[in-house]
Amino acid sequence: MHPERVKHSELSKKIMTAQEAAAFIKDGMVVGASGFTKGGDSKVVLKALAQRASVDPLKITLMTGASLGHGIDGRLAEAKALSRRLPFQADPILRNSINSGEVMFVDQHLGETADLLANGFLPPVDIAVLEVAQVLENGHVLPTTSVGNNLAYAQHAKHIILEVNVTIPLEIRGFHDIFYTGLSPHRSIIPVTDAGSIIGTDTMPMDPEKVIGIVFSDAKDSPAELVAPDTKTSAIAGHLMDFFNHEIKMGRMTPSLHPLQAGIGKVANAVLSGFVHGQFENLTMYSEVLQDSTFELIDSGKMTFASACSLAVSQSCYEKFFANLEKYRGKILLRPQNISNAAEVIRRLGLIAINTAIEFDIYGNVNSTHIAGSKMMNGIGGSGDFARNSYMSIFVTQAASKNNTISHVVPMASHVDSNEHDVDILVTDQGLADLRGLAPRERAKVIIQNCCHPEFRDALNEYYQEALARGGQTPHVLSKALSWHQKLQDTGSMK
Amino acid sequence: MHPERVKHSELSKKIMTAQEAAAFIKDGMVVGASGFTKGGDSKVVLKALAQRASVDPLKITLMTGASLGHGIDGRLAEAKALSRRLPFQADPILRNSINSGEVMFVDQHLGETADLLANGFLPPVDIAVLEVAQVLENGHVLPTTSVGNNLAYAQHAKHIILEVNVTIPLEIRGFHDIFYTGLSPHRSIIPVTDAGSIIGTDTMPMDPEKVIGIVFSDAKDSPAELVAPDTKTSAIAGHLMDFFNHEIKMGRMTPSLHPLQAGIGKVANAVLSGFVHGQFENLTMYSEVLQDSTFELIDSGKMTFASACSLAVSQSCYEKFFANLEKYRGKILLRPQNISNAAEVIRRLGLIAINTAIEFDIYGNVNSTHIAGSKMMNGIGGSGDFARNSYMSIFVTQAASKNNTISHVVPMASHVDSNEHDVDILVTDQGLADLRGLAPRERAKVIIQNCCHPEFRDALNEYYQEALARGGQTPHVLSKALSWHQKLQDTGSMK
Repeated sequence: MHPERVKHSELSKKIMTAQEAAAFIKDGMVVGASGFTKGGDSKVVLKALAQRASVDPLKITLMTGASLGHGIDGRLAEAKALSRRLPFQADPILRNSINSGEVMFVDQHLGETADLLANGFLPPVDIAVLEVAQVLENGHVLPTTSVGNNLAYAQHAKHIILEVNVTIPLEIRGFHDIFYTGLSPHRSIIPVTDAGSIIGTDTMPMDPEKVIGIVFSDAKDSPAELVAPDTKTSAIAGHLMDFFNHEIKMGRMTPSLHPLQAGIGKVANAVLSGFVHGQFENLTMYSEVLQDSTFELIDSGKMTFASACSLAVSQSCYEKFFANLEKYRGKILLRPQNISNAAEVIRRLGLIAINTAIEFDIYGNVNSTHIAGSKMMNGIGGSGDFARNSYMSIFVTQAASKNNTISHVVPMASHVDSNEHDVDILVTDQGLADLRGLAPRERAKVIIQNCCHPEFRDALNEYYQEALARGGQTPHVLSKALSWHQKLQDTGSMK
Repeated sequence: MHPERVKHSELSKKIMTAQEAAAFIKDGMVVGASGFTKGGDSKVVLKALAQRASVDPLKITLMTGASLGHGIDGRLAEAKALSRRLPFQADPILRNSINSGEVMFVDQHLGETADLLANGFLPPVDIAVLEVAQVLENGHVLPTTSVGNNLAYAQHAKHIILEVNVTIPLEIRGFHDIFYTGLSPHRSIIPVTDAGSIIGTDTMPMDPEKVIGIVFSDAKDSPAELVAPDTKTSAIAGHLMDFFNHEIKMGRMTPSLHPLQAGIGKVANAVLSGFVHGQFENLTMYSEVLQDSTFELIDSGKMTFASACSLAVSQSCYEKFFANLEKYRGKILLRPQNISNAAEVIRRLGLIAINTAIEFDIYGNVNSTHIAGSKMMNGIGGSGDFARNSYMSIFVTQAASKNNTISHVVPMASHVDSNEHDVDILVTDQGLADLRGLAPRERAKVIIQNCCHPEFRDALNEYYQEALARGGQTPHVLSKALSWHQKLQDTGSMK
């Protein structure tokens, strides 16, 4: 069966069914699985585990790269098979289990999980479950559509289960760059000096002795939903394009800008698509996830290179990529997520980081994770890695939602994931606030003036004026600072 | 006059009085001055400027390395000579002007100011005022007890005023390492691979054409106040020593630990002094400021190297350092603050970062800057640079103060400078909370149990139980989350 996919003779004896492989996973174990924003996830072993758990209860700690496809997080949550989950998720069923306190969710910077594991700050991994395209003669493996934390899980797990995905063309070899930094205090320099730097190997080293099972799979990545830009996302993209054009005019950037990072979702996709038009040229990306817009930019000739740790694309883009691998070779590279999200590289290259906020406050503090301060949405993801160390940290959100009953510009953020010290530019469909070099009182004026929805402007101004009378570097009325969220909880509206 | 101090023949013609030099500074100008936590600040030109401003009103934007000595920030604030101040201050008079809204204070990560200036995100510097020990034949200058942002100010200022401090022995040459990264997106690697790496030059390049005035000064740095450890700081140091011993026992660290960073103040000093006893050996520091405790550790043989961007020591330690330069040569190095606080190096070396909090909440969010959410204390300083990118991020504070009427462990931090994603260990005199790998609900239990003052434990538990009934990843009662601070504002007590 698929001899070209498992070329290591000893390992070819370990081929088994998904159910047999899943049986290695026992109650209480820690599992480190591949998968980053649906790309390159375990498609059959974790599914078999969820099926088994629904009849034969067990609970595991599950670590991944980021979110998974195929509803697997939801299936595991429904089967009550998760006691602890990290570092990210985006599943509505799992989200409920997290918010009810059933699953302990450790919401981590995605660039840090590998380090925390290596440092012994997280429980040791019992079994790694990794999707690969091929097992080579030397025991190295060829990754698929994400690299994520696979190297860290392979290094630190006691045992490894490989899911060999036979739908991934072997010609994907050359699209990965696997680099290991070693451990602090003796870590090596990460010698990436531009988005396209190749610093490692095109396959991933792995100890074949650790492999206890090999399973074949022919399932594709869950496609990303491609949402067409609406008036709000187009308006946000428009404000950002105007801003970048202004920065070029002021001589602060060239039409190649700086390497781009963009969070996942329709706003980021709309913004990137906006670069297809206009004066931009020789753009590069150094991001964590590549979406459809990246391929549009490469196809249009506007972008010369895109580096990330994962692909999260629509079905048609997925098919386009694999049908045209030679066209994209030398223009796309997937790296481990502690390299794609490395503080060192982000600062050195000087990224423009564009991420989505749930809400931000009048002083520029950003909430990326919690609804009304308590309920988890998805997690911070890589937004903190990039915002904290970038050249320019941009957050975008809609000014208001739910028929303008919820303002996404608030007196005080109900949770702070990226704070005033780390946020340069805020954008909503209403406008853009350039916070660079401003003190909090100055930021409040420009945020209220430019970013909030007109239906909330008077109320925000009223709050700010009342706060101002009390003084301080960052004036607040403590009894009212969270009252908008309180009202939302009580009445379903901030009005 | 002091020909050995100004060896550049053209520049020796620019010698003038402090008053004459200060006269170059006009209303509305941006001044970039040396000085970091009292070390290497302008001692005569800014003083002359404050004197002039008190009779001949003017307002400037003042950028420095960090806080200044000799009460100069207070003198300038009293003279109403500051319209804008960044990136840090620690002066009681200036603090009042900031909190009243008279001075716009831009509270920045100290490792970022140089980059923001170079990127054109801050107003251009009209005049740099830099303390130096010597001007060399080639126009390079020899720094004194801090490097701070001097290189950036010299590079980006239109004009430069030099304050030549004749009290600094010329033998200080060799104690500095000046390195320039260039500008993103084409910045170079910062090749520091251990605390003692020398990567630059021992004097600072500067364009002599920019120099418009040279002033001699014979004033020493304001000494740091040396506060003897009290029962609280000793208790905090004791908890941390126990913790480090535990980490060594668990095999996660050796007795050399990882390179240490410690914020300024008596707690950090007490913690570092604690390393003189016990099993620790071959310790190193990669910090922003070196305090007396660093010299104690070097003297005792426990520490082999300490890197920073400034000295902030007592008068006796200052005298000891200059009387024994040969003893400390090769063991101490001062770098620009965007190198001492570089994300890249902090992550690569894997620092243990120990910083002081004003308060933290039951979920591990840290407030380093604001009293009751609004009033500025000093600023975030380097704490964010280090906490965000370190191997282990530790925050310390007293559990309660003012006769136990104020709890420093609160339901919700009233301002967030380092958030839950960036904080590993919290310590008060009551105990230590190890938050590594914990979800927010788990953190709440260990923080309330270990860190809060017993007189506030029931109230915190009561808040947490009420919040828990409402659910969520991070349970809160919005109407009560800031009520402790509200009570403090209303009554002067959180009880």
